[in-house]
Amino acid sequence: MATILYQDQFIDRKQAKVDIEDRGYQFGDGIYEAMMVYSGRIFLLEPHLKRLERSARELSLTLPYSIDHLADNIKKLIELNQLEDGVVYFQITRGAAPRQHFFPEHTPPVITGTVSSKVRDLSKRPKGIKAVLAEDIRWLRCDIKTLNLLGNVLAKQKAHNVNAGEAILHRGETVTEGSSSNVFIVKAGELVTHPADHRILNGITRLFVFDLAKRLDIPVSEREFSLKELLHADEVFITSTSNEVKPVLQIDDQRINGGEPGALSKKLIAAFDAEVERIRTQPVS
Amino acid sequence: MATILYQDQFIDRKQAKVDIEDRGYQFGDGIYEAMMVYSGRIFLLEPHLKRLERSARELSLTLPYSIDHLADNIKKLIELNQLEDGVVYFQITRGAAPRQHFFPEHTPPVITGTVSSKVRDLSKRPKGIKAVLAEDIRWLRCDIKTLNLLGNVLAKQKAHNVNAGEAILHRGETVTEGSSSNVFIVKAGELVTHPADHRILNGITRLFVFDLAKRLDIPVSEREFSLKELLHADEVFITSTSNEVKPVLQIDDQRINGGEPGALSKKLIAAFDAEVERIRTQPVS
Repeated sequence: MATILYQDQFIDRKQAKVDIEDRGYQFGDGIYEAMMVYSGRIFLLEPHLKRLERSARELSLTLPYSIDHLADNIKKLIELNQLEDGVVYFQITRGAAPRQHFFPEHTPPVITGTVSSKVRDLSKRPKGIKAVLAEDIRWLRCDIKTLNLLGNVLAKQKAHNVNAGEAILHRGETVTEGSSSNVFIVKAGELVTHPADHRILNGITRLFVFDLAKRLDIPVSEREFSLKELLHADEVFITSTSNEVKPVLQIDDQRINGGEPGALSKKLIAAFDAEVERIRTQPVS
Repeated sequence: MATILYQDQFIDRKQAKVDIEDRGYQFGDGIYEAMMVYSGRIFLLEPHLKRLERSARELSLTLPYSIDHLADNIKKLIELNQLEDGVVYFQITRGAAPRQHFFPEHTPPVITGTVSSKVRDLSKRPKGIKAVLAEDIRWLRCDIKTLNLLGNVLAKQKAHNVNAGEAILHRGETVTEGSSSNVFIVKAGELVTHPADHRILNGITRLFVFDLAKRLDIPVSEREFSLKELLHADEVFITSTSNEVKPVLQIDDQRINGGEPGALSKKLIAAFDAEVERIRTQPVS
Protein backbone atom coordinates (compact mmCIF):
# COMPACT_ATOMS: atom_id res chain seq x y z
CA MET A 1 0.00 0.00 0.00
CA ALA A 2 1.52 3.30 -1.09
CA THR A 3 2.18 5.94 1.53
CA ILE A 4 2.21 9.63 0.81
CA LEU A 5 3.47 12.66 2.67
CA TYR A 6 0.66 14.95 3.75
CA GLN A 7 1.75 17.98 5.78
CA ASP A 8 3.86 16.41 8.55
CA GLN A 9 2.20 13.01 8.37
CA PHE A 10 2.57 9.83 6.38
CA ILE A 11 -0.80 8.55 5.24
CA ASP A 12 -2.30 5.95 2.99
CA ARG A 13 -2.46 7.01 -0.65
CA LYS A 14 -6.19 6.34 -0.80
CA GLN A 15 -6.91 8.67 2.06
CA ALA A 16 -4.98 11.47 0.45
CA LYS A 17 -7.35 14.25 -0.52
CA VAL A 18 -7.20 17.99 -0.77
CA ASP A 19 -9.84 20.64 -0.23
CA ILE A 20 -11.73 21.95 -3.25
CA GLU A 21 -10.76 25.49 -2.27
CA ASP A 22 -7.06 24.72 -2.01
CA ARG A 23 -5.42 27.51 -4.00
CA GLY A 24 -3.41 24.92 -5.83
CA TYR A 25 -6.68 23.62 -7.23
CA GLN A 26 -8.28 26.96 -8.03
CA PHE A 27 -5.29 29.07 -9.13
CA GLY A 28 -2.36 26.70 -9.59
CA ASP A 29 -0.96 28.73 -6.69
CA GLY A 30 1.89 26.50 -5.63
CA ILE A 31 5.34 25.15 -6.40
CA TYR A 32 6.89 21.72 -6.76
CA GLU A 33 10.04 19.68 -7.19
CA ALA A 34 10.72 16.21 -8.55
CA MET A 35 13.90 14.27 -7.80
CA MET A 36 15.34 10.97 -8.92
CA VAL A 37 16.02 8.23 -6.43
CA TYR A 38 18.72 5.66 -7.20
CA SER A 39 19.09 2.71 -4.83
CA GLY A 40 17.11 4.64 -2.25
CA ARG A 41 19.45 7.64 -2.46
CA ILE A 42 18.04 11.01 -3.54
CA PHE A 43 19.99 12.45 -6.43
CA LEU A 44 20.94 16.13 -6.09
CA LEU A 45 18.68 16.72 -3.11
CA GLU A 46 20.31 19.92 -1.93
CA PRO A 47 20.08 21.99 -5.14
CA HIS A 48 16.45 20.91 -5.58
CA LEU A 49 15.59 22.15 -2.10
CA LYS A 50 17.49 25.38 -2.67
CA ARG A 51 15.49 25.97 -5.84
CA LEU A 52 12.28 25.23 -3.94
CA GLU A 53 13.20 27.90 -1.42
CA ARG A 54 13.77 30.36 -4.24
CA SER A 55 10.42 29.51 -5.90
CA ALA A 56 8.67 30.04 -2.56
CA ARG A 57 10.40 33.38 -2.04
CA GLU A 58 9.47 34.61 -5.53
CA LEU A 59 5.79 33.88 -4.84
CA SER A 60 5.83 35.05 -1.19
CA LEU A 61 4.76 31.52 -0.30
CA THR A 62 5.62 30.27 3.17
CA LEU A 63 7.02 26.76 3.41
CA PRO A 64 5.20 24.53 5.92
CA TYR A 65 8.43 23.74 7.75
CA SER A 66 12.19 24.03 7.40
CA ILE A 67 14.06 22.65 4.41
CA ASP A 68 15.96 20.32 6.75
CA HIS A 69 12.76 18.89 8.13
CA LEU A 70 11.41 18.59 4.60
CA ALA A 71 14.53 16.65 3.60
CA ASP A 72 13.99 14.30 6.54
CA ASN A 73 10.34 13.78 5.59
CA ILE A 74 11.22 13.03 1.96
CA LYS A 75 13.81 10.50 3.06
CA LYS A 76 11.28 8.90 5.38
CA LEU A 77 8.71 8.78 2.56
CA ILE A 78 11.19 6.90 0.39
CA GLU A 79 11.96 4.51 3.23
CA LEU A 80 8.31 3.84 4.06
CA ASN A 81 7.61 3.02 0.41
CA GLN A 82 10.83 0.98 0.17
CA LEU A 83 11.57 2.84 -3.04
CA GLU A 84 14.74 1.70 -4.78
CA ASP A 85 14.77 3.46 -8.16
CA GLY A 86 12.19 6.02 -9.10
CA VAL A 87 10.92 9.55 -8.64
CA VAL A 88 9.94 11.49 -5.56
CA TYR A 89 7.54 14.35 -6.28
CA PHE A 90 6.20 16.93 -3.89
CA GLN A 91 4.26 20.15 -4.17
CA ILE A 92 3.41 22.96 -1.81
CA THR A 93 0.38 25.19 -2.30
CA ARG A 94 -0.72 28.36 -0.55
CA GLY A 95 -3.44 26.33 1.16
CA ALA A 96 -7.23 26.48 1.28
CA ALA A 97 -9.14 29.74 1.60
CA PRO A 98 -12.37 31.26 0.27
CA ARG A 99 -11.71 32.08 -3.37
CA GLN A 100 -10.23 35.49 -4.08
CA HIS A 101 -7.23 36.28 -6.24
CA PHE A 102 -5.00 38.01 -3.69
CA PHE A 103 -3.13 36.03 -1.05
CA PRO A 104 -5.16 34.90 1.96
CA GLU A 105 -3.72 35.67 5.38
CA HIS A 106 -2.77 33.07 7.97
CA THR A 107 -3.61 30.13 5.72
CA PRO A 108 -1.35 27.14 6.32
CA PRO A 109 0.38 25.92 3.14
CA VAL A 110 -0.39 22.38 2.02
CA ILE A 111 2.37 19.92 1.16
CA THR A 112 1.80 16.58 -0.51
CA GLY A 113 4.52 14.18 -1.60
CA THR A 114 4.45 10.92 -3.53
CA VAL A 115 6.91 8.40 -4.91
CA SER A 116 6.73 6.28 -8.02
CA SER A 117 8.94 3.39 -8.91
CA LYS A 118 10.88 3.40 -12.19
CA VAL A 119 13.64 0.91 -12.81
CA ARG A 120 16.67 2.44 -14.52
CA ASP A 121 17.30 -0.23 -17.13
CA LEU A 122 20.14 0.91 -19.38
CA SER A 123 19.63 -2.01 -21.77
CA LYS A 124 16.20 -0.59 -22.60
CA ARG A 125 17.25 3.03 -22.79
CA PRO A 126 16.56 4.47 -26.25
CA LYS A 127 19.47 6.08 -28.11
CA GLY A 128 17.56 9.31 -28.22
CA ILE A 129 14.23 10.92 -28.96
CA LYS A 130 12.35 12.79 -31.63
CA ALA A 131 11.19 16.31 -30.83
CA VAL A 132 8.80 18.81 -32.36
CA LEU A 133 9.00 22.59 -32.40
CA ALA A 134 6.36 24.67 -30.64
CA GLU A 135 5.97 28.39 -30.09
CA ASP A 136 6.69 29.25 -26.44
CA ILE A 137 3.47 30.91 -25.27
CA ARG A 138 4.11 30.58 -21.54
CA TRP A 139 4.25 33.40 -19.03
CA LEU A 140 7.40 35.41 -18.38
CA ARG A 141 8.33 33.86 -15.04
CA CYS A 142 9.33 30.42 -16.28
CA ASP A 143 12.21 30.61 -13.78
CA ILE A 144 9.75 29.76 -10.98
CA LYS A 145 8.79 26.10 -10.72
CA THR A 146 5.05 26.60 -10.31
CA LEU A 147 1.94 24.49 -10.82
CA ASN A 148 0.82 26.75 -13.71
CA LEU A 149 1.85 24.21 -16.31
CA LEU A 150 -0.80 24.38 -19.02
CA GLY A 151 1.56 25.92 -21.57
CA ASN A 152 3.97 23.06 -20.94
CA VAL A 153 1.14 20.51 -21.05
CA LEU A 154 -0.16 21.74 -24.42
CA ALA A 155 3.34 21.71 -25.94
CA LYS A 156 4.03 18.20 -24.61
CA GLN A 157 0.71 17.03 -26.00
CA LYS A 158 1.69 18.41 -29.41
CA ALA A 159 4.79 16.20 -29.25
CA HIS A 160 2.85 13.21 -27.92
CA ASN A 161 0.38 13.45 -30.82
CA VAL A 162 3.16 12.54 -33.27
CA ASN A 163 4.94 10.07 -30.96
CA ALA A 164 7.70 12.55 -30.21
CA GLY A 165 9.22 12.68 -26.74
CA GLU A 166 9.57 16.41 -26.32
CA ALA A 167 8.49 19.78 -27.67
CA ILE A 168 11.31 22.29 -28.08
CA LEU A 169 9.95 25.77 -27.41
CA HIS A 170 10.97 28.99 -29.11
CA ARG A 171 9.97 32.63 -28.68
CA GLY A 172 10.05 33.78 -32.26
CA GLU A 173 13.50 32.79 -33.55
CA THR A 174 15.01 32.17 -30.11
CA VAL A 175 14.99 28.66 -28.65
CA THR A 176 14.17 28.72 -24.94
CA GLU A 177 13.81 25.20 -23.51
CA GLY A 178 11.79 22.00 -23.75
CA SER A 179 8.27 21.60 -22.38
CA SER A 180 9.74 19.77 -19.38
CA SER A 181 13.48 19.96 -20.02
CA ASN A 182 16.36 22.27 -20.90
CA VAL A 183 17.81 22.21 -24.41
CA PHE A 184 21.53 22.12 -25.26
CA ILE A 185 23.14 22.27 -28.66
CA VAL A 186 26.72 21.38 -29.56
CA LYS A 187 28.48 23.78 -31.91
CA ALA A 188 32.16 23.24 -32.78
CA GLY A 189 32.93 21.37 -29.59
CA GLU A 190 31.08 23.78 -27.30
CA LEU A 191 27.82 23.29 -25.41
CA VAL A 192 25.34 26.13 -25.90
CA THR A 193 22.17 26.62 -23.84
CA HIS A 194 19.77 29.48 -23.11
CA PRO A 195 20.84 31.71 -20.19
CA ALA A 196 19.02 31.19 -16.90
CA ASP A 197 16.72 34.21 -17.02
CA HIS A 198 12.94 34.59 -16.63
CA ARG A 199 12.28 32.64 -19.84
CA ILE A 200 13.52 29.23 -18.68
CA LEU A 201 13.60 27.06 -15.61
CA ASN A 202 17.14 26.75 -14.36
CA GLY A 203 17.18 22.95 -14.36
CA ILE A 204 19.09 21.11 -11.68
CA THR A 205 20.20 18.59 -14.31
CA ARG A 206 21.19 21.54 -16.54
CA LEU A 207 23.49 22.76 -13.76
CA PHE A 208 24.77 19.26 -13.12
CA VAL A 209 25.69 18.96 -16.80
CA PHE A 210 27.67 22.20 -16.40
CA ASP A 211 29.65 20.40 -13.66
CA LEU A 212 30.18 17.31 -15.76
CA ALA A 213 31.28 19.42 -18.74
CA LYS A 214 33.81 21.21 -16.57
CA ARG A 215 35.27 17.92 -15.39
CA LEU A 216 35.42 16.73 -19.01
CA ASP A 217 36.96 19.99 -20.24
CA ILE A 218 34.01 20.74 -22.50
CA PRO A 219 33.36 24.49 -22.76
CA VAL A 220 29.81 25.73 -22.03
CA SER A 221 28.29 28.93 -23.33
CA GLU A 222 25.08 30.29 -21.81
CA ARG A 223 23.70 32.41 -24.61
CA GLU A 224 20.58 32.72 -26.72
CA PHE A 225 20.61 30.59 -29.85
CA SER A 226 18.30 30.54 -32.85
CA LEU A 227 16.05 27.94 -34.43
CA LYS A 228 18.47 27.86 -37.33
CA GLU A 229 21.39 27.07 -35.00
CA LEU A 230 19.28 24.36 -33.37
CA LEU A 231 18.38 22.67 -36.63
CA HIS A 232 21.97 22.84 -37.87
CA ALA A 233 23.67 21.92 -34.62
CA ASP A 234 26.31 19.19 -34.49
CA GLU A 235 24.37 17.60 -31.63
CA VAL A 236 21.24 18.39 -29.64
CA PHE A 237 20.27 16.98 -26.27
CA ILE A 238 17.80 17.74 -23.52
CA THR A 239 18.33 17.54 -19.79
CA SER A 240 15.81 17.02 -17.02
CA THR A 241 15.43 15.13 -13.79
CA SER A 242 13.70 12.15 -15.36
CA ASN A 243 15.35 12.36 -18.82
CA GLU A 244 18.84 12.88 -17.36
CA VAL A 245 20.83 13.62 -20.58
CA LYS A 246 18.90 12.55 -23.66
CA PRO A 247 20.04 13.02 -27.28
CA VAL A 248 17.55 14.57 -29.69
CA LEU A 249 17.95 12.70 -32.98
CA GLN A 250 15.26 14.41 -34.99
CA ILE A 251 13.36 17.72 -34.76
CA ASP A 252 10.21 17.82 -36.86
CA ASP A 253 11.54 16.44 -40.17
CA GLN A 254 15.15 17.47 -39.61
CA ARG A 255 17.57 14.75 -38.54
CA ILE A 256 20.35 15.83 -36.20
CA ASN A 257 23.85 14.35 -36.62
CA GLY A 258 22.48 11.83 -39.11
CA GLY A 259 20.01 10.57 -36.51
CA GLU A 260 22.74 9.34 -34.17
CA PRO A 261 23.82 10.54 -30.71
CA GLY A 262 26.90 12.74 -31.00
CA ALA A 263 30.28 12.27 -29.38
CA LEU A 264 29.88 14.91 -26.66
CA SER A 265 26.38 13.72 -25.80
CA LYS A 266 27.73 10.22 -25.32
CA LYS A 267 30.62 11.46 -23.19
CA LEU A 268 28.20 13.35 -20.93
CA ILE A 269 25.85 10.39 -20.66
CA ALA A 270 28.74 8.11 -19.68
CA ALA A 271 29.83 10.59 -17.02
CA PHE A 272 26.24 10.89 -15.80
CA ASP A 273 25.87 7.10 -15.61
CA ALA A 274 29.09 6.87 -13.62
CA GLU A 275 27.75 9.46 -11.16
CA VAL A 276 24.54 7.50 -10.71
CA GLU A 277 26.47 4.30 -10.06
CA ARG A 278 28.73 6.14 -7.63
CA ILE A 279 25.87 7.39 -5.46
CA ARG A 280 24.24 3.93 -5.37
CA THR A 281 27.02 2.77 -3.08
CA GLN A 282 27.23 5.88 -0.93
CA PRO A 283 25.93 5.82 2.63
CA VAL A 284 22.28 6.88 2.92
CA SER A 285 22.54 10.13 4.85
CA MET B 1 -24.76 23.39 6.02
CA ALA B 2 -23.39 24.26 2.60
CA THR B 3 -23.89 21.85 -0.25
CA ILE B 4 -21.57 21.60 -3.22
CA LEU B 5 -21.81 20.07 -6.64
CA TYR B 6 -19.40 17.19 -7.10
CA GLN B 7 -19.66 15.40 -10.45
CA ASP B 8 -23.37 14.61 -10.70
CA GLN B 9 -24.01 14.65 -6.95
CA PHE B 10 -24.80 17.22 -4.30
CA ILE B 11 -22.70 16.65 -1.23
CA ASP B 12 -21.84 18.30 2.04
CA ARG B 13 -19.13 20.96 1.72
CA LYS B 14 -17.03 19.27 4.40
CA GLN B 15 -16.94 16.01 2.51
CA ALA B 16 -15.79 17.69 -0.67
CA LYS B 17 -12.25 16.60 -1.45
CA VAL B 18 -10.24 16.02 -4.58
CA ASP B 19 -7.47 13.58 -5.33
CA ILE B 20 -3.86 14.75 -4.96
CA GLU B 21 -3.17 13.66 -8.54
CA ASP B 22 -6.09 15.57 -10.01
CA ARG B 23 -4.55 17.42 -12.94
CA GLY B 24 -6.18 20.59 -11.71
CA TYR B 25 -3.98 20.31 -8.63
CA GLN B 26 -0.74 19.34 -10.37
CA PHE B 27 -0.93 21.33 -13.63
CA GLY B 28 -3.80 23.79 -13.26
CA ASP B 29 -5.24 21.70 -16.09
CA GLY B 30 -8.83 22.85 -15.97
CA ILE B 31 -11.33 25.59 -16.73
CA TYR B 32 -13.92 27.50 -14.74
CA GLU B 33 -16.76 29.97 -14.76
CA ALA B 34 -18.26 32.25 -12.12
CA MET B 35 -21.73 33.75 -12.41
CA MET B 36 -23.76 36.18 -10.35
CA VAL B 37 -27.05 35.16 -8.82
CA TYR B 38 -29.68 37.80 -8.12
CA SER B 39 -32.81 36.73 -6.22
CA GLY B 40 -31.97 33.13 -7.04
CA ARG B 41 -31.78 33.85 -10.79
CA ILE B 42 -28.50 33.22 -12.60
CA PHE B 43 -27.36 36.28 -14.51
CA LEU B 44 -26.21 35.66 -18.09
CA LEU B 45 -26.14 31.88 -17.68
CA GLU B 46 -26.15 31.05 -21.37
CA PRO B 47 -23.12 33.06 -22.52
CA HIS B 48 -21.11 31.76 -19.56
CA LEU B 49 -21.87 28.17 -20.54
CA LYS B 50 -21.07 28.89 -24.17
CA ARG B 51 -17.70 30.29 -23.13
CA LEU B 52 -17.10 27.21 -20.99
CA GLU B 53 -17.69 25.03 -24.01
CA ARG B 54 -15.18 27.08 -25.97
CA SER B 55 -12.56 26.85 -23.19
CA ALA B 56 -13.03 23.07 -23.08
CA ARG B 57 -12.67 22.80 -26.84
CA GLU B 58 -9.48 24.88 -26.88
CA LEU B 59 -7.90 22.55 -24.30
CA SER B 60 -9.35 19.33 -25.77
CA LEU B 61 -11.03 18.84 -22.42
CA THR B 62 -14.18 16.74 -22.31
CA LEU B 63 -17.06 18.09 -20.26
CA PRO B 64 -18.48 15.58 -17.76
CA TYR B 65 -22.00 15.97 -19.15
CA SER B 66 -24.04 18.16 -21.44
CA ILE B 67 -24.29 21.91 -20.97
CA ASP B 68 -28.04 21.56 -20.42
CA HIS B 69 -27.53 19.05 -17.64
CA LEU B 70 -24.83 21.32 -16.18
CA ALA B 71 -27.28 24.22 -16.22
CA ASP B 72 -29.82 22.08 -14.36
CA ASN B 73 -27.23 21.05 -11.78
CA ILE B 74 -26.16 24.63 -11.19
CA LYS B 75 -29.76 25.70 -10.69
CA LYS B 76 -30.29 22.84 -8.27
CA LEU B 77 -27.13 23.81 -6.39
CA ILE B 78 -28.48 27.34 -5.95
CA GLU B 79 -31.82 25.96 -4.78
CA LEU B 80 -30.32 23.52 -2.31
CA ASN B 81 -28.26 26.30 -0.78
CA GLN B 82 -31.24 28.68 -0.86
CA LEU B 83 -28.95 31.26 -2.38
CA GLU B 84 -30.58 34.62 -2.97
CA ASP B 85 -27.78 36.99 -4.00
CA GLY B 86 -24.25 35.80 -4.54
CA VAL B 87 -21.86 33.95 -6.77
CA VAL B 88 -21.92 30.47 -8.20
CA TYR B 89 -18.49 29.13 -9.13
CA PHE B 90 -17.60 25.88 -10.79
CA GLN B 91 -14.52 24.34 -12.31
CA ILE B 92 -13.82 21.32 -14.45
CA THR B 93 -10.44 19.62 -14.51
CA ARG B 94 -9.04 16.89 -16.72
CA GLY B 95 -9.33 14.50 -13.77
CA ALA B 96 -6.90 12.38 -11.78
CA ALA B 97 -4.13 10.37 -13.42
CA PRO B 98 -0.52 9.39 -12.67
CA ARG B 99 1.54 12.52 -13.25
CA GLN B 100 2.77 13.11 -16.78
CA HIS B 101 2.48 16.28 -18.84
CA PHE B 102 0.53 14.98 -21.81
CA PHE B 103 -3.18 14.26 -21.58
CA PRO B 104 -4.15 10.98 -19.92
CA GLU B 105 -6.61 8.78 -21.80
CA HIS B 106 -10.03 7.74 -20.55
CA THR B 107 -9.77 9.81 -17.38
CA PRO B 108 -13.12 11.21 -16.28
CA PRO B 109 -13.09 15.00 -15.83
CA VAL B 110 -13.84 16.33 -12.34
CA ILE B 111 -16.42 19.05 -11.76
CA THR B 112 -16.88 20.89 -8.49
CA GLY B 113 -19.27 23.78 -7.92
CA THR B 114 -19.87 26.06 -4.96
CA VAL B 115 -22.00 29.06 -4.10
CA SER B 116 -21.23 31.99 -1.85
CA SER B 117 -23.69 34.54 -0.61
CA LYS B 118 -23.07 38.24 -1.25
CA VAL B 119 -25.79 40.77 -0.67
CA ARG B 120 -25.94 43.42 -3.38
CA ASP B 121 -26.31 46.50 -1.21
CA LEU B 122 -26.25 49.59 -3.43
CA SER B 123 -26.11 51.92 -0.44
CA LYS B 124 -22.71 50.46 0.42
CA ARG B 125 -21.38 50.36 -3.11
CA PRO B 126 -18.25 52.50 -3.44
CA LYS B 127 -18.20 55.21 -6.14
CA GLY B 128 -15.23 53.51 -7.71
CA ILE B 129 -11.85 52.00 -7.08
CA LYS B 130 -8.17 52.75 -7.21
CA ALA B 131 -6.03 50.68 -9.55
CA VAL B 132 -2.33 50.09 -10.06
CA LEU B 133 -0.44 49.36 -13.27
CA ALA B 134 1.36 46.05 -13.71
CA GLU B 135 3.24 44.53 -16.62
CA ASP B 136 1.21 41.74 -18.20
CA ILE B 137 3.48 38.70 -17.91
CA ARG B 138 0.82 36.05 -18.50
CA TRP B 139 0.80 33.46 -21.21
CA LEU B 140 -0.52 34.11 -24.71
CA ARG B 141 -3.81 32.22 -24.38
CA CYS B 142 -5.56 34.57 -21.97
CA ASP B 143 -8.69 34.00 -24.05
CA ILE B 144 -9.15 30.60 -22.35
CA LYS B 145 -10.61 30.73 -18.85
CA THR B 146 -8.18 28.31 -17.23
CA LEU B 147 -7.01 27.57 -13.70
CA ASN B 148 -3.49 28.81 -14.55
CA LEU B 149 -4.03 32.07 -12.70
CA LEU B 150 -0.73 32.84 -11.00
CA GLY B 151 0.00 35.82 -13.25
CA ASN B 152 -3.41 37.23 -12.34
CA VAL B 153 -2.87 36.41 -8.66
CA LEU B 154 0.49 38.20 -8.50
CA ALA B 155 -0.92 41.29 -10.21
CA LYS B 156 -3.96 41.39 -7.92
CA GLN B 157 -1.67 41.04 -4.91
CA LYS B 158 0.34 44.03 -6.14
CA ALA B 159 -2.90 46.04 -6.10
CA HIS B 160 -3.97 44.63 -2.74
CA ASN B 161 -0.63 45.63 -1.18
CA VAL B 162 -1.51 49.32 -1.67
CA ASN B 163 -5.24 48.93 -0.95
CA ALA B 164 -6.14 49.21 -4.61
CA GLY B 165 -8.99 47.13 -6.02
CA GLU B 166 -7.47 46.11 -9.32
CA ALA B 167 -4.25 45.87 -11.30
CA ILE B 168 -4.49 47.11 -14.88
CA LEU B 169 -2.17 45.05 -17.05
CA HIS B 170 -0.17 46.23 -20.03
CA ARG B 171 2.14 44.51 -22.51
CA GLY B 172 4.70 47.22 -23.03
CA GLU B 173 2.70 50.32 -23.96
CA THR B 174 -0.53 48.45 -24.75
CA VAL B 175 -3.19 48.06 -22.07
CA THR B 176 -4.70 44.58 -22.15
CA GLU B 177 -7.13 44.03 -19.26
CA GLY B 178 -7.38 43.91 -15.48
CA SER B 179 -6.11 41.02 -13.36
CA SER B 180 -9.70 39.77 -13.07
CA SER B 181 -11.64 42.22 -15.25
CA ASN B 182 -11.76 43.92 -18.62
CA VAL B 183 -10.77 47.57 -18.92
CA PHE B 184 -12.70 50.26 -20.80
CA ILE B 185 -11.74 53.86 -21.38
CA VAL B 186 -13.98 56.68 -22.55
CA LYS B 187 -12.54 58.99 -25.17
CA ALA B 188 -14.67 61.78 -26.68
CA GLY B 189 -17.94 59.99 -26.01
CA GLU B 190 -16.77 56.59 -27.25
CA LEU B 191 -16.01 53.41 -25.26
CA VAL B 192 -12.66 51.86 -26.14
CA THR B 193 -11.53 48.40 -25.04
CA HIS B 194 -8.92 45.86 -26.13
CA PRO B 195 -10.07 43.53 -28.95
CA ALA B 196 -11.00 39.98 -27.94
CA ASP B 197 -7.87 38.19 -29.11
CA HIS B 198 -5.49 35.79 -27.35
CA ARG B 199 -4.29 38.50 -24.97
CA ILE B 200 -7.53 39.01 -23.03
CA LEU B 201 -10.44 37.05 -21.69
CA ASN B 202 -13.57 37.96 -23.58
CA GLY B 203 -15.59 38.85 -20.50
CA ILE B 204 -19.29 38.09 -20.40
CA THR B 205 -19.83 41.41 -18.62
CA ARG B 206 -17.67 43.07 -21.28
CA LEU B 207 -20.06 41.74 -23.94
CA PHE B 208 -23.07 42.69 -21.86
CA VAL B 209 -21.76 46.26 -21.66
CA PHE B 210 -21.55 46.26 -25.46
CA ASP B 211 -25.29 45.47 -25.45
CA LEU B 212 -26.07 48.17 -22.93
CA ALA B 213 -24.00 50.69 -24.90
CA LYS B 214 -25.89 49.84 -28.05
CA ARG B 215 -29.22 50.41 -26.32
CA LEU B 216 -27.91 53.73 -24.96
CA ASP B 217 -26.48 54.81 -28.33
CA ILE B 218 -22.92 54.91 -27.00
CA PRO B 219 -20.40 53.93 -29.66
CA VAL B 220 -17.90 51.17 -28.80
CA SER B 221 -14.52 50.67 -30.41
CA GLU B 222 -12.62 47.43 -29.93
CA ARG B 223 -9.05 48.49 -30.53
CA GLU B 224 -5.71 48.51 -28.75
CA PHE B 225 -5.07 51.56 -26.61
CA SER B 226 -1.95 52.80 -24.91
CA LEU B 227 -0.99 53.49 -21.32
CA LYS B 228 -0.96 57.17 -22.23
CA GLU B 229 -4.54 56.99 -23.52
CA LEU B 230 -5.53 55.17 -20.34
CA LEU B 231 -4.03 57.74 -18.02
CA HIS B 232 -5.52 60.63 -20.00
CA ALA B 233 -8.91 59.07 -20.63
CA ASP B 234 -12.10 60.99 -19.88
CA GLU B 235 -13.31 57.99 -17.88
CA VAL B 236 -12.02 54.54 -17.03
CA PHE B 237 -14.03 51.59 -15.77
CA ILE B 238 -13.60 47.87 -15.37
CA THR B 239 -16.14 45.15 -15.99
CA SER B 240 -16.34 41.67 -14.52
CA THR B 241 -18.92 39.27 -13.19
CA SER B 242 -18.48 40.32 -9.58
CA ASN B 243 -17.49 43.95 -10.22
CA GLU B 244 -20.26 44.51 -12.78
CA VAL B 245 -19.35 48.01 -14.07
CA LYS B 246 -16.95 49.77 -11.72
CA PRO B 247 -15.40 53.21 -12.27
CA VAL B 248 -11.65 53.52 -11.81
CA LEU B 249 -11.03 56.82 -10.11
CA GLN B 250 -7.27 56.67 -9.72
CA ILE B 251 -4.46 54.71 -11.41
CA ASP B 252 -1.22 54.74 -9.45
CA ASP B 253 -0.94 58.47 -8.65
CA GLN B 254 -3.00 59.68 -11.57
CA ARG B 255 -6.58 60.72 -10.84
CA ILE B 256 -9.12 60.02 -13.57
CA ASN B 257 -11.87 62.56 -14.26
CA GLY B 258 -10.92 64.43 -11.09
CA GLY B 259 -11.47 61.29 -9.04
CA GLU B 260 -15.18 61.11 -9.87
CA PRO B 261 -17.19 58.58 -11.90
CA GLY B 262 -17.84 59.95 -15.37
CA ALA B 263 -21.16 60.52 -17.10
CA LEU B 264 -21.04 57.47 -19.39
CA SER B 265 -19.91 55.18 -16.57
CA LYS B 266 -22.87 56.33 -14.51
CA LYS B 267 -25.25 55.81 -17.41
CA LEU B 268 -24.01 52.25 -17.91
CA ILE B 269 -24.20 51.48 -14.22
CA ALA B 270 -27.79 52.73 -14.09
CA ALA B 271 -28.67 50.56 -17.07
CA PHE B 272 -26.90 47.60 -15.47
CA ASP B 273 -28.79 48.12 -12.20
CA ALA B 274 -32.06 48.24 -14.07
CA GLU B 275 -31.23 44.92 -15.76
CA VAL B 276 -30.47 43.31 -12.41
CA GLU B 277 -33.76 44.55 -10.96
CA ARG B 278 -35.57 43.31 -14.05
CA ILE B 279 -34.31 39.76 -13.76
CA ARG B 280 -35.15 39.62 -10.03
CA THR B 281 -38.83 39.47 -10.93
CA GLN B 282 -38.54 37.12 -13.87
CA PRO B 283 -39.73 33.53 -13.59
CA VAL B 284 -37.02 31.12 -12.45
CA SER B 285 -36.54 28.91 -15.50
